[in-house]
Amino acid sequence: MPGKAKNILFIMCDQLRWDYLSCYGHPHLETPNIDALAARGVRFTRAYVQSPICGASRMSTYTGRYVQSHGAAWNGFPLKVGEMTLGDYLRPLGMRTALVGKTHMEADVEGMQRLGIDPQSIIGVRVSECGFEPYERDDGLHGMGPDGPRYSPRRPRYNSYLNDKGYAGENPWHDFANAAVGEGNSLASGWAMRHARKPARVAEEDSETPYMTRRGIDFMREAGDAPWCLHLSYIKPHWPYIAPKPYNDMYEPGDVIAAVRSEAERRDPHPVYRAFMDHRVSRTFSRDDVRREVIPVYMGLIKQIDDQMGVLFGWMREHGVFDNTLIVFTSDHGDYLGDHWLGDKDFFHDASVKVPLIIYDPSSVGDAARGSTCDELVEAIDLAPTFLAVAGGDPAAQSHRLEGRSLLPLLRGEKPEAWRPFAVSEYDYGMMPASAALGVRPRDARLFMVADKNWKLVHAIGFRSMLFDLKNDPDELRDRGTDPACAGELERLEHALKQWGLRVSQRTTRSEQQIDNARGKAERRGILIGVWDETDIPAELWKGYLPRT
Amino acid sequence: MPGKAKNILFIMCDQLRWDYLSCYGHPHLETPNIDALAARGVRFTRAYVQSPICGASRMSTYTGRYVQSHGAAWNGFPLKVGEMTLGDYLRPLGMRTALVGKTHMEADVEGMQRLGIDPQSIIGVRVSECGFEPYERDDGLHGMGPDGPRYSPRRPRYNSYLNDKGYAGENPWHDFANAAVGEGNSLASGWAMRHARKPARVAEEDSETPYMTRRGIDFMREAGDAPWCLHLSYIKPHWPYIAPKPYNDMYEPGDVIAAVRSEAERRDPHPVYRAFMDHRVSRTFSRDDVRREVIPVYMGLIKQIDDQMGVLFGWMREHGVFDNTLIVFTSDHGDYLGDHWLGDKDFFHDASVKVPLIIYDPSSVGDAARGSTCDELVEAIDLAPTFLAVAGGDPAAQSHRLEGRSLLPLLRGEKPEAWRPFAVSEYDYGMMPASAALGVRPRDARLFMVADKNWKLVHAIGFRSMLFDLKNDPDELRDRGTDPACAGELERLEHALKQWGLRVSQRTTRSEQQIDNARGKAERRGILIGVWDETDIPAELWKGYLPRT
Repeated sequence: MPGKAKNILFIMCDQLRWDYLSCYGHPHLETPNIDALAARGVRFTRAYVQSPICGASRMSTYTGRYVQSHGAAWNGFPLKVGEMTLGDYLRPLGMRTALVGKTHMEADVEGMQRLGIDPQSIIGVRVSECGFEPYERDDGLHGMGPDGPRYSPRRPRYNSYLNDKGYAGENPWHDFANAAVGEGNSLASGWAMRHARKPARVAEEDSETPYMTRRGIDFMREAGDAPWCLHLSYIKPHWPYIAPKPYNDMYEPGDVIAAVRSEAERRDPHPVYRAFMDHRVSRTFSRDDVRREVIPVYMGLIKQIDDQMGVLFGWMREHGVFDNTLIVFTSDHGDYLGDHWLGDKDFFHDASVKVPLIIYDPSSVGDAARGSTCDELVEAIDLAPTFLAVAGGDPAAQSHRLEGRSLLPLLRGEKPEAWRPFAVSEYDYGMMPASAALGVRPRDARLFMVADKNWKLVHAIGFRSMLFDLKNDPDELRDRGTDPACAGELERLEHALKQWGLRVSQRTTRSEQQIDNARGKAERRGILIGVWDETDIPAELWKGYLPRT
Repeated sequence: MPGKAKNILFIMCDQLRWDYLSCYGHPHLETPNIDALAARGVRFTRAYVQSPICGASRMSTYTGRYVQSHGAAWNGFPLKVGEMTLGDYLRPLGMRTALVGKTHMEADVEGMQRLGIDPQSIIGVRVSECGFEPYERDDGLHGMGPDGPRYSPRRPRYNSYLNDKGYAGENPWHDFANAAVGEGNSLASGWAMRHARKPARVAEEDSETPYMTRRGIDFMREAGDAPWCLHLSYIKPHWPYIAPKPYNDMYEPGDVIAAVRSEAERRDPHPVYRAFMDHRVSRTFSRDDVRREVIPVYMGLIKQIDDQMGVLFGWMREHGVFDNTLIVFTSDHGDYLGDHWLGDKDFFHDASVKVPLIIYDPSSVGDAARGSTCDELVEAIDLAPTFLAVAGGDPAAQSHRLEGRSLLPLLRGEKPEAWRPFAVSEYDYGMMPASAALGVRPRDARLFMVADKNWKLVHAIGFRSMLFDLKNDPDELRDRGTDPACAGELERLEHALKQWGLRVSQRTTRSEQQIDNARGKAERRGILIGVWDETDIPAELWKGYLPRT
């Protein structure tokens, strides 16, 4: 018997495509546990992230604001001190807000120093950890390159865990969880995709996904009865594409669906799109032999997540947490996997910018929509106001900060009037080889997507725009950006982008309501503008200016 | 013999129109001291403020950023914690940055509390005082209304000064400096403009402008040899329009130049313009009897400022400060004074949005331009990068924060290639009666100006745009917004506005240079994307992933 949501479990996968779940229609990948969540909740079919790259997408999700508004436009660009995050909204309402896993947060160390904030203080840690209490922070990529020992700020607890379990060395994350045994008993790094289908040198239970599931359960167990919001944030199925047994060979090349691409896309493409096609990862994933080797493992990693969802939801049911917790399952962006001759993410085809989004609301008022799909245009920035509403806050009163909208009405099967007509996403490619190849300066290396239900615009600063007819060309294979027949649609979306660019996003210290309440009140504090004669305004306003005895 | 600028004296008047100085062409108002500064410096003929209202204009000037970027869009909207201001740029370069007078800064108390910043700490005071050391803060308007005793945060030192000089009472700012003797020996408040030409009840030397001049001199005297930037910020000629003898009747109604307006402007005007015409101050200033009474005093207050500039510059010369100090003389916006059937400021005709800007650079490299005018489009946000350059910093390295450009090249008579083609200003009228009258919500109550040297666009969210042909209609009397003959110009400026709205303004934690330097470096920290085979990349990148012995 479902109750009202007291807690929030915000599950995020990394680089999980929207269409690699059976409930979203994948023909060969069965994800029964995630599907079961969808059967009890609402499955969104048009959920867009605010940027198809980890860091920027997540900073939008955690702040409820567009990338252009918060400015952390690429991986490793610090989120500036002062940007409010989930915890800033939920904590004052009595909701503990914690992290297990990845945020991709880079702290604004310079900003903290300028404002005298000690990074080790409670506030400093929150500023550094994107507003979360870092129950366990692990960004999941622990590189070992000539310029530095690793990627995340600290040696991950996961490495210590592996050491304790007998996996030796400084970086067992790589040497065991993300490497296999190669030719002649050599170490076959997962960073080389040719090893993808070899089994990782780790027992399944010690691999990253089950480990993080257990850490999430640890948190829930310790949290007790006080309300909480847990961000359980998995690194997988993000590369390195390598999986432990049995997931490494659970799928075969025959299970790989065909790449969504056409030769026409390579003939005279948009210059920025062409430059992205030239990236190494795009060239690699354009090879069918690569796709046949890598995608089965990508599928295996997703299957492992689904199995872990079974573990997680089972534990929650057993411990009475399932029916008083709002559960969100989503991803930070997709993965091209060779679609459109591209690899990784970074561009705006649905494979990259659209994500799965399933929300289970235990509240009985959600019964009307249980098991349904919602086709409205939703954005990742809608989660923060949704969570605020679940915690008992009023998202409308925060509309001067939160740019998304609460999804609660949609979760209840309501049809809010004037739901957003466009979804917007952004991409800053100043850090990519494409910007150098095109000779585009960082400040101009920016792309914008504006999509409604039928059309998608890709606006590139300094270049012509691309346009896709989603209704008649759902695979987005034909760029209509220069087609005179589509000029009207192009203009309509360009106009929407212009209005979006002119929105108010930084007036974060005054709400709509405060302005409405303050309008015209200056007179009552003695500021009298345009008064010719004392009789022009009520005598009351002059009282302070009468001679005092 | 001029030397190099070591200090910066940044003089700002409040509500001083660009054309009410003799060096800018006023036929009856002689301002020889300001003119003399112009004769030694550069006089800018197209200097625009970023918003024609005190608070927003100043926050842009002090941050070097557009209003849409910093968000403090109206008087009393706090500048958010984290926005960098002049002092944040100049202080690390060894330049003391202090305030005498007005900033209109409202502290972000809520933001400071969220970040644990004590408002009484040194950093807290800087955050609260817009980055300035408040040598003397006085916003110059001290209201006494039924809802509160006054406007500024603290009782001004000026009131204590007046008390000490024998002007009694709680608020001698009003009762003496801004009031006269009325009928039957009554107190005639300066807030009622019919009293404008009566002499204020204060000796000239005790009125606000000479007082602030002396306080500026106090600062310079105490500052000694270390470099400083002093913002000497006068409240006058801002209303209340009232002046002490002899300035109250130095000018006559016959000295008042005709209002720039036409009956055609009132026939079928743009709806937002019409709503602004309906404001009380506009109706009042549309009366010729009001203009004849008020404008002579407005001129007198300017004449007093000019006389005080003589005192100030004289002291600086005597004390060897004049020739090593960059001196800026400007205003935060203009005053309609009945032009275009409007009063106060708040809209985008030149009377409101264009300001005088005179800069004297003692450096010998400035000799080439001495006494010249500069017709380039400059913006108030150019001052912060100019000051940074004077202090020895590199504005280009701060272009991810500072949206203006250093004026030093223009001060040296250089012709920088690709100077800005458009000036942009903004106005948020959510706090004005017009927004209520039009039924426009605060988030939509916004106006944008885009001007080049020949045309000016006024874009109003939710309404059609206005357009002025500055070349053939320099008085801006004919709105060409609906004229098909001007459609091309309209479209061109609308496009410029769109590009402006899409600019990157919040990526303040990563500079252009940092991005250029970081591009492609992730591989050297072990993040290897799209690698199929170990031979695809240099062996060096694999070192961290080789088996360790």
